[in-house]
Order: sequence, then structure tokens, then C-alpha cells
Amino acid sequence: MKVSARNLIPGKVKEITVGAVNSEVIIEVAPGIEVVSIITKRSVEDMGLKKGSAVKAMVKASNVMIVTD
Amino acid sequence: MKVSARNLIPGKVKEITVGAVNSEVIIEVAPGIEVVSIITKRSVEDMGLKKGSAVKAMVKASNVMIVTD
Amino acid sequence: MKVSARNLIPGKVKEITVGAVNSEVIIEVAPGIEVVSIITKRSVEDMGLKKGSAVKAMVKASNVMIVTD
Amino acid sequence: MKVSARNLIPGKVKEITVGAVNSEVIIEVAPGIEVVSIITKRSVEDMGLKKGSAVKAMVKASNVMIVTD
Amino acid sequence: MKVSARNLIPGKVKEITVGAVNSEVIIEVAPGIEVVSIITKRSVEDMGLKKGSAVKAMVKASNVMIVTD
Amino acid sequence: MKVSARNLIPGKVKEITVGAVNSEVIIEVAPGIEVVSIITKRSVEDMGLKKGSAVKAMVKASNVMIVTD
Repeated sequence: MKVSARNLIPGKVKEITVGAVNSEVIIEVAPGIEVVSIITKRSVEDMGLKKGSAVKAMVKASNVMIVTD
Repeated sequence: MKVSARNLIPGKVKEITVGAVNSEVIIEVAPGIEVVSIITKRSVEDMGLKKGSAVKAMVKASNVMIVTD
Repeated sequence: MKVSARNLIPGKVKEITVGAVNSEVIIEVAPGIEVVSIITKRSVEDMGLKKGSAVKAMVKASNVMIVTD
Repeated sequence: MKVSARNLIPGKVKEITVGAVNSEVIIEVAPGIEVVSIITKRSVEDMGLKKGSAVKAMVKASNVMIVTD
Repeated sequence: MKVSARNLIPGKVKEITVGAVNSEVIIEVAPGIEVVSIITKRSVEDMGLKKGSAVKAMVKASNVMIVTD
Repeated sequence: MKVSARNLIPGKVKEITVGAVNSEVIIEVAPGIEVVSIITKRSVEDMGLKKGSAVKAMVKASNVMIVTD
């Protein structure tokens, strides 16, 4: 399977907070570096995500902004 | 300055492709790991971005999807 | 600090509704004109947002659509 | 017609830059205050947008971030 | 009314799940084919959406990714 | 492979317009019904997309708005 989204960062699920509709999934992508994702509660269930799951964080390039000091 | 966006990943600009309206900025965030950003041509100019610039890639958590094998 | 997002509108927080994962923040940007933002509950806490806080609403240009009558 | 997007800001088109695929539309929403939108070239054509057109900038609430000093 | 968003798919609301801030709306766009939308709880109320409502799902073209096998 | 994005609509590429940075891909998902996607030029090349390619349009649920008459 190929996907047009240009950013795929591998990591491990560190923490999941579940709401009525959405869930917050914290992914550790390197020691001490986290990526936070908000996906639907149903996606968390359908994918069987839990603490420790090996995942990739995926981001479309048009959703990446740039910041400088 | 504080920002609500939960994901800020530091890196260095590796390559910039400029179009009439948008630009593609490739950021090296770790050896061999890149993050791609599409921002406006004018932002690249206003921020003075060029190869080697120290930047942070910023992503709102609601724009992060999750993929598993 | 410089950011690539082209739209920054100053205002004051008028109302915050907190959910388990996300929060709705209503910002008054001019008398009677409001901008609504959905950010994570944790961002509201980390930034210490409350009614009356001076903030800026920030939007990436690629997320602005146009409507005509 | 009703739309779920919570943010609709009226203004006038001030400037349009056209690329091969996308266009940048600058909208003046108040004296000296601009909102920038990136939409497809074809939408600009289909809507007949030009300098001076009365429009509304529309943004889904989940695409609004918050910044503080 | 004209809108710059290029994708408008007609359907009928099949199911609504309401959270404190957001709601999940499942729209049946063809027999057995569903489109899922996350909008604010307040938009669901303001628009009077309920099971069976005739709606259109609207997506900005820059938010559509492509996948191949 | 599983992905958290809730919307995956199969179709065939009908037309591709290439810019310096982005490309517009028109996908026919049913006779006379099209979905338009803006992805990077490089994604079009990397995926080998061309007229007639079998693809799926993918949209995160939080990027789907709702419109009523």
C-alpha cells in the first residue's frame, strides 16, 4: 500500500485518553520525544490500539507549519 | 510565546522548492529522517528560510493520523 | 518567534467548554465578532487559558475557504 | 444554506496570485486586517473571484489554533 | 451561495454520537457507503441535524489524500 | 495495513494537473461524481499516478464539514 501523505514517523503508543467521540493518543517516536494525535474513539477501537502498540504517525505535508526563534 | 499546537519537532532545512504560490520545505529532523512541509512562497520569504536554517516543524494534533501494519 | 501560518487575529477568550479530550474556545476578536477554536483540553491547561485571556487565533492559509452569496 | 463551519468572516478580495494549481487570495476583513486563503485556481475561476469581490473567509473550528505571548 | 471547497457529496444522516464538545455524524452517501464527519456539538444543534436529515458532506481538496494498493 | 482515517472512497484517476509543488488529481468515484485532491507533485511521481490508475481518496473525519439547504 502506498499513500500520498509525505510524513510517516514510527513510534510506540505511550498513552491513550478516551472521550465520547475523540481520543488523544500520545506516541513516543524517540526517547523523550512525543507526537500527539487526535483520532476518533472508534478508530482506536477498530485498530486495537493500546499502550505499547507499534504505530506510525502520519501527517499530510500541507498540515505542517514552520516556526523559527 | 506559547502555542496550542502540540507537536513541535526541531530540525534543519535541507531543501526548498518554490512554486508560484506554495513552497515545499524539506526538514531533516534526525539523520536520515525528514519532515516535509508545504507553506506559502511568501512565508518562506518573510521568514528568510534557506538551506541550513534551524526551524521547528509544527503540527496540530488533530492533523496527525495513525497507521499500523 | 516567527511562524509560517499567515493568519493571526488578536482577541480575548469569551468562553471555554471543556470535554474529555478537546475544548471549545470562543474568542471575541471585535465587538460582536467571534472566532471559535477547538484545541485539546491539555493545551487549554498548559497555556492557562481562561475567560478574559488575551490570545491570538492562528490559522494556516490552506485551511481558509471562501464563500460568496 | 447552512454550514457546520463555525467561522465566517466577511471581507473584500484585495489581491489574487494565481499558480498552476493553487491561488493565494488576500481578503481585507477590516481596515489594515487581512486574511489569506489558499484555494485551487479552478475555484477562483468557477467563483469568478476578482479584486473587490465581496466574500466570506470560512474556517472549520478544528483548524483554529491559539497563541499567547 | 458558492463555496471554494471542491468536494460536496449528498447523503442522509444515519447516526449521530454527541460528546461534550464534538459530535460524530455518519452520513450514508450510497447504499452501504458511509462518510464520517466530526463537527462541533453546537453545529449539530444549530443546524438541527438528526437521523434522516438530507445533507452534503463537504471537503476542501487540500484535505484529500490518495492511497493505492 | 490499517489507518485511522475513517473515509476511504475507491475510484479511478480521471485527470492530473501538475504544478511546481502541488498537483490536482481528479478522481471519478462513480459515474459523473468526482472527488478532487491536492497532493504534492512528488507524491504523484512516487506513486506513479496517471490517468486510469485505481486509487482510494482518503479523508480524516475531522476534515469533513456538513452543509444543508
